[in-house]
Amino acid sequence: MMTAPSRRLLVRNTSQVVTCEGRRPFDLGVVEHGSVLIEDGKVAWVGPERRLRSGLGDVVELDAGGGCVLPGFVDAHTHLAFVGDRAAEHQARLRGDRYQTGGIMNTVSATRAATTEALVSETEARAWSALASGTTTLEAKSGYGLDTATEVRLLEVIATVAERTPLRIYPTFLGAHLLPDADYLDLLVEEMLPACAPLAEGCDAFCDLGALTVAEARKALEAGKAHGLVPRLHAEELAHTGGALLAAELSCASADHLVHATEDDARALAFAGVVAVLLPATSFCLRSAYAPARRFLDRGATIALATDCNPGTSYTTSMPFVIAVACSELRLSAEEAVRAATAGGAAALQRPELGRLTVGSAGDLVVLAGETYADLAYHPGMDRVAAVVVDGEIVKGPGAADRPSGETT
Amino acid sequence: MMTAPSRRLLVRNTSQVVTCEGRRPFDLGVVEHGSVLIEDGKVAWVGPERRLRSGLGDVVELDAGGGCVLPGFVDAHTHLAFVGDRAAEHQARLRGDRYQTGGIMNTVSATRAATTEALVSETEARAWSALASGTTTLEAKSGYGLDTATEVRLLEVIATVAERTPLRIYPTFLGAHLLPDADYLDLLVEEMLPACAPLAEGCDAFCDLGALTVAEARKALEAGKAHGLVPRLHAEELAHTGGALLAAELSCASADHLVHATEDDARALAFAGVVAVLLPATSFCLRSAYAPARRFLDRGATIALATDCNPGTSYTTSMPFVIAVACSELRLSAEEAVRAATAGGAAALQRPELGRLTVGSAGDLVVLAGETYADLAYHPGMDRVAAVVVDGEIVKGPGAADRPSGETT
Repeated sequence: MMTAPSRRLLVRNTSQVVTCEGRRPFDLGVVEHGSVLIEDGKVAWVGPERRLRSGLGDVVELDAGGGCVLPGFVDAHTHLAFVGDRAAEHQARLRGDRYQTGGIMNTVSATRAATTEALVSETEARAWSALASGTTTLEAKSGYGLDTATEVRLLEVIATVAERTPLRIYPTFLGAHLLPDADYLDLLVEEMLPACAPLAEGCDAFCDLGALTVAEARKALEAGKAHGLVPRLHAEELAHTGGALLAAELSCASADHLVHATEDDARALAFAGVVAVLLPATSFCLRSAYAPARRFLDRGATIALATDCNPGTSYTTSMPFVIAVACSELRLSAEEAVRAATAGGAAALQRPELGRLTVGSAGDLVVLAGETYADLAYHPGMDRVAAVVVDGEIVKGPGAADRPSGETT
Repeated sequence: MMTAPSRRLLVRNTSQVVTCEGRRPFDLGVVEHGSVLIEDGKVAWVGPERRLRSGLGDVVELDAGGGCVLPGFVDAHTHLAFVGDRAAEHQARLRGDRYQTGGIMNTVSATRAATTEALVSETEARAWSALASGTTTLEAKSGYGLDTATEVRLLEVIATVAERTPLRIYPTFLGAHLLPDADYLDLLVEEMLPACAPLAEGCDAFCDLGALTVAEARKALEAGKAHGLVPRLHAEELAHTGGALLAAELSCASADHLVHATEDDARALAFAGVVAVLLPATSFCLRSAYAPARRFLDRGATIALATDCNPGTSYTTSMPFVIAVACSELRLSAEEAVRAATAGGAAALQRPELGRLTVGSAGDLVVLAGETYADLAYHPGMDRVAAVVVDGEIVKGPGAADRPSGETT
């Protein structure tokens, strides 16, 4: 019997390879002038290029052009699936209006009315745009349906986009985005979860002022757990309402936003091993306070950076932008920000094989136009991603297959 | 005798055309579903597409794809000409070090040692990158030479790049970037200015703590004025040292940075008609305070937004990024930010024919992927510039001539 030949990609001519080897929040495990060999989608070898053995045989080469190579970004918090935009709401807010969670219902109405074709098309465009800026894994929440049929449809759309693009997608059920009426939470537990759980890996709730109380969020997440879903929680974004301690109590994979988290919250999250997912692009867009990132680091919590891509409060798919804002506003070093955007995101999604370039890790990586990982914060707002590889296949850059260009509407 | 046929470009199928007609800092003069006709590099007609007369004859069409059209960005403050980078300095600062103006001397050394070919090549790459993000006019300062020969060479490099790219470039002599020794200011007046003035339009000085005093800056700018150069001034960036009042006293075209400007400064600039050029990307990169933008607007001063592109404190060529930061951190509305990045920049450069799309204005424009000018702040960090036109020629987008892609090192 013949075995199929290995698919092999060799990335060479780098200035440095960031492996994220190590446990500390600033460990990048940099290999100077490194090379990465990916075999059948997994990292088979990484080390200084001069130590590369000769006679590798049949292998596709990706010349990094002297740039820095780092793991593909893991964007651990997005609301990718919706139609339409709320540019007018953003514009009004910039003139001085306040953000009200009610804006979500505008997107819910548009999404319910949209054809599945339109939903797939707009969501897929955002997926390509994320890929073009170096995101190789992305968490995508439902939550703009808020009825059983549309929530199911959103999770199906997410699955379709995961099939149609090289992006790795982690689907999360966020039926508990808001409670549109008094009976909704019962409906969620009794009807929506049984229908949605088979299509999702995570279960999330928006625990905040104007959204769910701690008791309501606990009910939603416990029901999700009973269906085998991993709990995650929107916590302490608009006000301090107790979500962080709930996330610790329920051993959530992550607590997200955390703008108003206290020292006690940080200690509890660190102790419970809950990853603090920080979303500085949202604070940037809302002109609100930024999460106390250094508080989480000081208490020993793992942090992740994510885009929060959504039409109301952070309509960006760019992890390089998030890294730049994190360095500026969360006072992270370039090392901490890069680690949080890769290995940190992977920790939030409980996927230790992602966000790293060590032997056995997924063959997902980014080649920068610059020589150092510091380049991302050093050139804010510029496209510095020269190439992107997912699962050992080049999806952007020299040698990439012809695919739709990244674009959103 | 035959006259040459007109070069004509018709931009149609827009959602809106931003003309910047009007005098108030938030006037955008939006024409819904507008169309722009450019003839021999100048706007010949602008109005609702349905009123476009038929039988235009021989004309190149640019289909805006339903996107928003606005004047090309006028980036009124850059240090575009240099070689090398200072990513390591930025990286160290993000770990907690303080910015010291001494860092400039690293770039001076590298620039002095560089071949003219290397200088042109790196500067030209940045010019293309600026064009790709929608900048059609850009002010470029010398200032990394600090000796006569290199300052002349930098202004020649700027002229070469202006010839080799479609970018409109306004050259400024910034010999007074620092005073490397006690005799330098005399050298600048007696030797550098006579050699450099024929190559420049503006004359600038870095008046700040650790750079020039008010008296030194006055001497440099008065000498520049005697050579016919338009005075401009770096003022009140790192500390309040009196630069803003000096700019008002000398009727500078602009006072730039202004992070520490007071109410009195704002009043004086407004009264003297000095444009306040705000550089929020620099505050973003330095994690420093932001300029009091609303103070200038409240006092009736004209504001402009610019990148400050330089290797030490703001290595970005992206005006869309600057607009997004201005909305977030300077608390500008989308209208104010777009106006400041177009007509405001043109005012700072005293070029009223730029930064507008009214009859007789320069045929420089940007087509966005989105339907509204608010799109730039709404999608921070994403490339939303679908097409760029300079002087009636398409330089990015469908129908663009084949040219090097935007890239920096």
